[in-house]
Amino acid sequence: MTVKRLIGRPSYVHPIARAPGRAGVAEPARVGDDHVHPDIATEESRVSIGQSTVERRSGGSGPSAETLLWQRNRDEVAGPQDQWNDTLATIINHRSVRAFLPRALPGGTLELLVAAAQSASTSSNLQLWSVIAVEDPARKARLSELAGAQKFIRDAPLLLVWLCDHARLDAIAAERQTPVEGLQYLEEFIVGIIDAALAAQSAAIAAESLGLGCVYVGAVRNSPEQVAAELGLPPRVFAVFGMSVGVPDPAGETGVKPRLPRPVVLHREQYAGASREGEIARYNATVRGFQREQGMREQDWTQQSIDRVKDAAALRGRDRMRAALRALGFELR
Amino acid sequence: MTVKRLIGRPSYVHPIARAPGRAGVAEPARVGDDHVHPDIATEESRVSIGQSTVERRSGGSGPSAETLLWQRNRDEVAGPQDQWNDTLATIINHRSVRAFLPRALPGGTLELLVAAAQSASTSSNLQLWSVIAVEDPARKARLSELAGAQKFIRDAPLLLVWLCDHARLDAIAAERQTPVEGLQYLEEFIVGIIDAALAAQSAAIAAESLGLGCVYVGAVRNSPEQVAAELGLPPRVFAVFGMSVGVPDPAGETGVKPRLPRPVVLHREQYAGASREGEIARYNATVRGFQREQGMREQDWTQQSIDRVKDAAALRGRDRMRAALRALGFELR
Repeated sequence: MTVKRLIGRPSYVHPIARAPGRAGVAEPARVGDDHVHPDIATEESRVSIGQSTVERRSGGSGPSAETLLWQRNRDEVAGPQDQWNDTLATIINHRSVRAFLPRALPGGTLELLVAAAQSASTSSNLQLWSVIAVEDPARKARLSELAGAQKFIRDAPLLLVWLCDHARLDAIAAERQTPVEGLQYLEEFIVGIIDAALAAQSAAIAAESLGLGCVYVGAVRNSPEQVAAELGLPPRVFAVFGMSVGVPDPAGETGVKPRLPRPVVLHREQYAGASREGEIARYNATVRGFQREQGMREQDWTQQSIDRVKDAAALRGRDRMRAALRALGFELR
Repeated sequence: MTVKRLIGRPSYVHPIARAPGRAGVAEPARVGDDHVHPDIATEESRVSIGQSTVERRSGGSGPSAETLLWQRNRDEVAGPQDQWNDTLATIINHRSVRAFLPRALPGGTLELLVAAAQSASTSSNLQLWSVIAVEDPARKARLSELAGAQKFIRDAPLLLVWLCDHARLDAIAAERQTPVEGLQYLEEFIVGIIDAALAAQSAAIAAESLGLGCVYVGAVRNSPEQVAAELGLPPRVFAVFGMSVGVPDPAGETGVKPRLPRPVVLHREQYAGASREGEIARYNATVRGFQREQGMREQDWTQQSIDRVKDAAALRGRDRMRAALRALGFELR
């Protein structure tokens, strides 16, 4: 079993996967600066960031704030910071997990994730979203086939499918014999997408805080009508994306994928111009470094990204999204 | 100064607002079960949820997991749980903050929030989002007028405007004289919306973990072209929503807004039917109870929601979203 890790940087091991005494999985290699989840280590430590000192109240032997922030862009570290906490560490240490152990989730996990999801903001409290928890292996396997035949969908014990749901309010209005014509407009479709995404992201962070791993599955949009049929969706409900959730397999651990330099995505007061060739070139080099470390094929981010959207065929069926949404009952006026 | 609170339930006071020695704000009323931020209290405590016992490692005198979960739906509490942590407490204790103190954010906060945002998942790592940080009082005031004349936009020291950004990849492709026709499809607009929403929600949770408050501002979509002009957006960039961030004013504190009963939004294996009249009636009663406590006008959630989308006029200008997006350069094929 090999554990991929950042060269010269700490390796992250999920706390559930590394808990001592767990059957069937050897303790992965550890380096001095390993992340240790607050559930395991609670000692205090102090780490230095920039000119200031940060007090950490738990996860004492985990990576420092500076390390975590560095991993995110491999660029300048935000600072000086005088605040740090476990929630920031959880958020900033995110990576998508696509390798899961064949283990069930602890009892009550799903309900906690949904409580987190329901806690997210929702436009005008309309709550234009729903979620379907799929745990039946046969259904997961069928959905996997519809969503790019991705093995991790079958492997993870739970597939959450996040929905833009106009049917609930439609039904409520119909029972009151009141029209809700406003739902037919593109605006309310956008609201449903946003509501579903905010809810899902709160659930994702909640899952990661519990030592679980997850990955978004945009490929459920490859075949919207077939996915809707499999899930028994009524008209005017759309599967926005899936999310596989499970216990990470340490053998499939990956590093934190670096993102664009912060100045490329953060503008001050007004938009600062779309072309940032110097920073983009630096990012291409950063991405290549990451790919080398992870044993992935090296390719510039710019080329990868262009290839992904170069033409209609590159969208893997999603170029017919408008027709699919119309078939599902969304007028998008 | 009155502090609204849940009757018979603990009052939440943001840790920054209640920190001793802060000038100009009296210490708000406290009740025995007040939330105390882990930065302030770190003692251990044990709270009972269902049949099991939960160990809390910090925030010892804050509300229990059971209380926080109860507040979210005022319904059955998920459980038994044997896991709880500060991140779950932060997420599940969310409320939108619309009353801010006239205080600047601590140095480095913006960079931390953007690091959190960049840590969210993004489809195929395309990163089809950007964010504009607006701090200039005059610009905030103008944007406030464009977004429903909401006072809190002026009051908060920071307005983040989250963008669906196709211009960056357009520009990168143009420099390489390569077409990116795929960006013209509705699918990639959806991707940009989702990317922006996931990033924003990670930033929102990060802000709340730091004791700050925030609120989403969907009203920037009331006038997409004018907002784009104010922010100097190039073609093919769309302001999805704003987010005001600041130090909460304890005088404007609100309770946790209850959401729909969990079974209404959580489906198992397949969609369980849009009509759930019994649970919806229960929720109407719950919402009325909350409105009474908060001194708000009492109205059924069903009626509020129907009114919000009953016809095109109810969308407050957003019924022309398709035309606005076309004017901004989105074909949405």
